[in-house]
Amino acid sequence: MEHILIVGIGKSTSYLIDYLSKASVARGMEITVGDIDKDTLDQLKNSYPQIEGVVLDIFDAVQRKEAIRKATLVISMLPARLHIEVARDCVSLGKHLVTASYVSDEMQELDAEVKEKGLVFMNEIGLDPGIDHMSAMQVIDRVRDRGGKMLLFESFCGGLVAPESDNNLWNYKFTWNPRNVVVAGQGGAAKFIQEGTYKYIPYQKLFRRTEFLDVEGYGKFEAYANRDSLKYREAYGLQDVLTLYRGTMRRVGFSRAWNMFVQLGMTDDSYIMEDSGDMSYRDFVNAFLPYSPTDSVELKMRHYLKIDQDDIMWNKLEELGLFSRDRRVALPRATPARILQKILEESWSLEEDDKDMIVMYHKFGYELEGRKFQVDSSMVVIGEDRKFTAMAKTVGLPVAMAALQILEGKISTPGVQIPIRKEVYQPILEELERQGVVFHEKEGPYTGYNPDHVAG
Amino acid sequence: MEHILIVGIGKSTSYLIDYLSKASVARGMEITVGDIDKDTLDQLKNSYPQIEGVVLDIFDAVQRKEAIRKATLVISMLPARLHIEVARDCVSLGKHLVTASYVSDEMQELDAEVKEKGLVFMNEIGLDPGIDHMSAMQVIDRVRDRGGKMLLFESFCGGLVAPESDNNLWNYKFTWNPRNVVVAGQGGAAKFIQEGTYKYIPYQKLFRRTEFLDVEGYGKFEAYANRDSLKYREAYGLQDVLTLYRGTMRRVGFSRAWNMFVQLGMTDDSYIMEDSGDMSYRDFVNAFLPYSPTDSVELKMRHYLKIDQDDIMWNKLEELGLFSRDRRVALPRATPARILQKILEESWSLEEDDKDMIVMYHKFGYELEGRKFQVDSSMVVIGEDRKFTAMAKTVGLPVAMAALQILEGKISTPGVQIPIRKEVYQPILEELERQGVVFHEKEGPYTGYNPDHVAG
Repeated sequence: MEHILIVGIGKSTSYLIDYLSKASVARGMEITVGDIDKDTLDQLKNSYPQIEGVVLDIFDAVQRKEAIRKATLVISMLPARLHIEVARDCVSLGKHLVTASYVSDEMQELDAEVKEKGLVFMNEIGLDPGIDHMSAMQVIDRVRDRGGKMLLFESFCGGLVAPESDNNLWNYKFTWNPRNVVVAGQGGAAKFIQEGTYKYIPYQKLFRRTEFLDVEGYGKFEAYANRDSLKYREAYGLQDVLTLYRGTMRRVGFSRAWNMFVQLGMTDDSYIMEDSGDMSYRDFVNAFLPYSPTDSVELKMRHYLKIDQDDIMWNKLEELGLFSRDRRVALPRATPARILQKILEESWSLEEDDKDMIVMYHKFGYELEGRKFQVDSSMVVIGEDRKFTAMAKTVGLPVAMAALQILEGKISTPGVQIPIRKEVYQPILEELERQGVVFHEKEGPYTGYNPDHVAG
Repeated sequence: MEHILIVGIGKSTSYLIDYLSKASVARGMEITVGDIDKDTLDQLKNSYPQIEGVVLDIFDAVQRKEAIRKATLVISMLPARLHIEVARDCVSLGKHLVTASYVSDEMQELDAEVKEKGLVFMNEIGLDPGIDHMSAMQVIDRVRDRGGKMLLFESFCGGLVAPESDNNLWNYKFTWNPRNVVVAGQGGAAKFIQEGTYKYIPYQKLFRRTEFLDVEGYGKFEAYANRDSLKYREAYGLQDVLTLYRGTMRRVGFSRAWNMFVQLGMTDDSYIMEDSGDMSYRDFVNAFLPYSPTDSVELKMRHYLKIDQDDIMWNKLEELGLFSRDRRVALPRATPARILQKILEESWSLEEDDKDMIVMYHKFGYELEGRKFQVDSSMVVIGEDRKFTAMAKTVGLPVAMAALQILEGKISTPGVQIPIRKEVYQPILEELERQGVVFHEKEGPYTGYNPDHVAG
């Protein structure tokens, strides 16, 4: 009997478990969920009586191996750094593995052994990475099958708040790990290619060099560049492409406002602030402003960041309560980034009934029989509430679908892999469409970057 | 017979060797200079026949120990990271040691053994660190001896070009390691205290938050904050001081212009640029600017950095040849910082007859019998030419003097140490005065930071 073990219950597992539990009833398949938290398992059992729950300490090798031994396939939804022990057990016990995380070097090292044993270790099959790979490769393969040559590929994704729940000046709420949002873009310049030229953006300019995007029915968005747009150049076979760019989407105006935090130094996660346990929000702000015997924190801030009297940027700061003397940081030995995260979480957390929104947008430019074309492909998914989020849907469903396809033998090529082959993406994209994850395509003439062929 | 071994001949040793060779004649003392480069030793022998030269590979433990064994005291002028092996040999062979470098953790670990053997390991006795310690502690001790309480200490130092050799728009030339200038301020926020409040400046704002200083007879300077102004708080006994700030001095306008490189991302030393071997200077600049099918690199630059038509900042860029199509980077696999360094070295290197200039400036605020006072103390030294630089003088002479004082037994307290005790700084500062390294003091009422006692 088929038996799936899901390790780790988190924000992204609501749809995953729901989808698989329905499938298990239809197919007569066993599902076990392993997690360290008994309460979480009990709640799950109430909603899904057919699912087996097992308290599992992932650092306990005996427990872990015992749980994995009983399964046919393992889905690891643990934090990315914890996959590797599960993966090693899967190899030695001969089980398939599915994760939504980037392939680590350690994971890649297992490839030969995984192939030898005929196993499928499918990674990067969530949203981003995941749906981005699949939806991009579907168009790229189609262009190539028709004899076309790729000229341009740009890809954007954002986890945002749905229009009906969008009630703050930043047009943003946290739908995923807030820490990742606060430190986004740090650790090196963003690198990409535009019309054959390598371009670099340092962190201090990243949020001032956004691009605009229109998504039909949802209005205008902006995007800032991801750190390494070139990561999948070879995997996608785009070595000769003239433009390659990946970005993160926000509502227009977010990045210009976020840049204030960057310029102040509030996103720095590399040092501990003195007295962070005793600070007010106002003290926190003042630590990044020049000393003055007479001027207020507000005036110093306006002057330092050159914020005009009537600039909405100022209201964005005020909305967060940044100048409050009463609200306390109360985080001992915290970095600026950690403190900023706390302040933002108070304003930007999803309410019980808030809906989130996932937006993905690809641009493909190609040449076919001497003419140039462009395809714009976009997807929008709106969540149901704080639990059944669009994020959980778009991360969890592809994972669940891949697991079933592997069990059915439809995904059978062994090895440590990501979903860029047709065998993998075609059935999953079709099934995603049936679940409401739909890409809309618009084909037209190539506008590209260099209409007049003038050197940049 | 007394015998000094100097290890490593570099930019900073001209005065050191000159001073010691004169002393050796007067005192009947032997001096050996060890260096890996035979030509350098031969040239030295021509100028100073009384000095013994020995070819010495510092990584050859046998050679190194043999040279050290013959000495009474060792001066290490090697790059800082190479001191430790010499230091360990000095401990085991029972020799005193003098360096101009920061005390590393490894060096500090030798302290107990050094004390046990009654040896003096004097470090940080160059210019900065060195003369700054001594000249600051002289005033601080004087304030305390009179019963005063320190309120404020600010300290600034800069290695610049002398007015008579100042012939570029940046009013700057390299007088020391150019790499340190290019990456200055990176690796974390600058941290200091102003009127009892901790302040932090991120790298992206560092060169826009300068302070101005007047040095009598030399006009106006500016200073940007050093990374850790609080480093010597305990060593100087300034735990309760309200203001503590250390900065690097430049001519007015330098930092605002330097900030252009920071904003572009050209000072980044953390990644390799594609095609750096084949780039023109113009290509280098363009890699940091947005792509445009029509606009010139010049216009994109003006727009990106908001440089007005008549702004002198623009001329500063042009002076460096940054927009040249013909001048080539020709550095394979280079970081942006490495490339920028090359470009700047072409414009900012000292000519044969150029004179450099060292400026140091301290501000001390203190309270005595209920009243507040301030002492401003400054020093300017002008070099003679590209070899006998003010930098070499102010780094080398204190090292040489400390060595002689140790041999004479005037500096006798054993241990790994820096020159903050009166026993050490007093005779050296007096001798430095005789050599033209003179501090001028101005005493007046306390202006401080908080004249009206208004909360910042």
